[in-house]
Amino acid sequence: MTGGADPPQIAYSQWLHACKQAGWQGTPAAEPVAVRDALGRVTAAAVWARWSVPRFACAAMDGIAIAIAAVPPDAGETGPWRLAAGTFVPVDTGDPMPAGTDTVLIREHVTPGRDGSAQISGPARRGRHVRPPGEDIEAGELLLPAGHQLSPADLAAIAATGHSTVQAARRPVVAIIPTGDEIQPVGSALGPAGVVDSNSLMLAARADQIGAFPLVRDIQPDDRETIAAELRRAAVAADLVVIIAGSSAGRDDYTAAVIAEAGELAVSGVAVRPGRPALLGYARPGAGPGADPVPVIGIPGYPLAAAVTFELFAVPLLAALQGCPTPDRSWQEVRLGCDWDSPPGVEEWVPVALGAPDVAVARDVSCGDGALVAMPQRRGAGTISQLMRASAWWPIPIGQGHFAGGADIHVHPLPGGSGWR
Amino acid sequence: MTGGADPPQIAYSQWLHACKQAGWQGTPAAEPVAVRDALGRVTAAAVWARWSVPRFACAAMDGIAIAIAAVPPDAGETGPWRLAAGTFVPVDTGDPMPAGTDTVLIREHVTPGRDGSAQISGPARRGRHVRPPGEDIEAGELLLPAGHQLSPADLAAIAATGHSTVQAARRPVVAIIPTGDEIQPVGSALGPAGVVDSNSLMLAARADQIGAFPLVRDIQPDDRETIAAELRRAAVAADLVVIIAGSSAGRDDYTAAVIAEAGELAVSGVAVRPGRPALLGYARPGAGPGADPVPVIGIPGYPLAAAVTFELFAVPLLAALQGCPTPDRSWQEVRLGCDWDSPPGVEEWVPVALGAPDVAVARDVSCGDGALVAMPQRRGAGTISQLMRASAWWPIPIGQGHFAGGADIHVHPLPGGSGWR
Repeated sequence: MTGGADPPQIAYSQWLHACKQAGWQGTPAAEPVAVRDALGRVTAAAVWARWSVPRFACAAMDGIAIAIAAVPPDAGETGPWRLAAGTFVPVDTGDPMPAGTDTVLIREHVTPGRDGSAQISGPARRGRHVRPPGEDIEAGELLLPAGHQLSPADLAAIAATGHSTVQAARRPVVAIIPTGDEIQPVGSALGPAGVVDSNSLMLAARADQIGAFPLVRDIQPDDRETIAAELRRAAVAADLVVIIAGSSAGRDDYTAAVIAEAGELAVSGVAVRPGRPALLGYARPGAGPGADPVPVIGIPGYPLAAAVTFELFAVPLLAALQGCPTPDRSWQEVRLGCDWDSPPGVEEWVPVALGAPDVAVARDVSCGDGALVAMPQRRGAGTISQLMRASAWWPIPIGQGHFAGGADIHVHPLPGGSGWR
Repeated sequence: MTGGADPPQIAYSQWLHACKQAGWQGTPAAEPVAVRDALGRVTAAAVWARWSVPRFACAAMDGIAIAIAAVPPDAGETGPWRLAAGTFVPVDTGDPMPAGTDTVLIREHVTPGRDGSAQISGPARRGRHVRPPGEDIEAGELLLPAGHQLSPADLAAIAATGHSTVQAARRPVVAIIPTGDEIQPVGSALGPAGVVDSNSLMLAARADQIGAFPLVRDIQPDDRETIAAELRRAAVAADLVVIIAGSSAGRDDYTAAVIAEAGELAVSGVAVRPGRPALLGYARPGAGPGADPVPVIGIPGYPLAAAVTFELFAVPLLAALQGCPTPDRSWQEVRLGCDWDSPPGVEEWVPVALGAPDVAVARDVSCGDGALVAMPQRRGAGTISQLMRASAWWPIPIGQGHFAGGADIHVHPLPGGSGWR
């Protein structure tokens, strides 16, 4: 199982290649979404401004609107000079410029007279304190490209330029099938050999973070036919199916056979630690052989291995299904807080805690420049507490062995792991 | 309005002080939330493990479980040696250890015999390949402190240690009241002087990002009594009320008077740019004078000023109402891509685009060390496109004037602005 395993990036390519060969499209579907509901969604097409912002010339300050032609030729820089009644209109910031006016004098420079005239104590220059139409955004301008995740300001700009809906990539559905006779739903009165289905919860939450729609299915017993039937059912409504546990070579591990039977098992085992027993393939949904294939991942049941497998294979696929390029994870350079030896022949994913340089654990590591210190969590694929206490992943490429404490390493922070949102 | 304005941090303190003097509690309310719905929520109390993980001793590898006493004294490191039929039980990873067993021999070292015995080709050490109860998490252990934002791994750990719900801070409700005769709902057929209510959309989305629950109210006309009545109604159901526009000194700007009448106007104008006309106070909800006060912010209608005012005053208040400490924004050191002069006497908030050092705009800035380059957006409070194209805020403290291109500056990235989630 482990000897001939390929690195994760190659396994990912092999998987997608097999799916495409079998007729999988893998293209994002678009749907119209109300702008008010589109936060975090990804544009499925470029957005162009229908209207200019502002749509009309408007006052940029509170004051009076005038035609520059009404200004006496001898009006100086500081005045005072006088405007006759009926030659000006009071305006507030944002008001459209009244017909025939082209300039705003700010209210601080205007003293109204009893006869409807006004005394002015400042300069008048044509067009001053007026925002021309399109100053901010011109009608016809490209606002946003396709594949862009929408921020609060994007929503405001889309609405301000005349759209009430936006074409967004449909949220891909990931069906999550927990398996195992010992697995019990969250909230169960647990028997002596029971294990809570915490993996489904973790993966569903992670799917939600990256814009996918998780669909957690019922827990399936260790029965090959039952799991096979559930896989075919789940694939009908899903863009990706994840089967948890049953991917190592134990007695009750039917996942590989089930995937092969429902479609094809393209990859069995990946050179990653933890997560070696990962399975990659596809299933044809429903009963008929003609349906389009749906990618399937067999995810090991150990929590840390489950998390790594999901990051490596589900996250980029779910990004691609939203029209995003392969995730460009944000990397951060930090300082390793202790020595670390990575096993040969595998890409190791190490959850690390990030701390300020003055934390006690890092006493022996020089951090005069203020770099954060990364403390790897103790090894062991089963320890969910490791992941809970980590704030970043440190992926170590194959072929890199010994790291000395104090080395600069590159990690990618977990979402929400540090700082404010 | 501007001369005597205080810096934002002082204005914030004055505001909260006035609210507290008037009887505002400002303490987060807790509610039980199903673990499956708790992603991103903030713990309202510490979470302790009810159960150990694992709950029982279990196999850490696939193989056979034995009692170490059954191993012949002359069994060496590599074998072969033999186990009699009935002295071992096959186990898979995660299986509870059968009664009377204490050690696992991995399947790669086990060759079953026809008579029910097994030949072993490896060592046997007491307790090897067995996970003791509590190896990951001990019952009674502190899992998470109060005030912690829940991640996918946190949810898994909470569920695995015996909880199906978690006490979380109630999402604070922020009522957003758009005002202005010219403001039209998103999707309107806009008249010649109409402006789309894009600010409500932007602020509601931002509130959502930080865990608050936005409640956008109907657009109110420029009528003092109408706005006053709406403020009192909105305050009944809200933890914070935001009134958009009407905070400068124009003809139709009733917000300051409305807040003063409904409670107290504690701060009128803040030394920040953009956002100077911000108003801070509180309102007593409903008709009666005895109700607890609700904080109110009068937010300028210019989009960039609205965004800055919301960041400075609404975001920390909504964090505090979730039991989070004052937001510890995540700072990033970047290199300024051009010269910049900040006006005296105000804290300036500059939206900046972040780019790789090889972007053309930064040709004159030395970036041999790979630091990102920050390009300030052109000034002008009304330009929503600035904020849309920015990926970070650069807040410049009062008293810092000239910055030369190439200077190291500290910015805080907008959520989702860079990298993958």
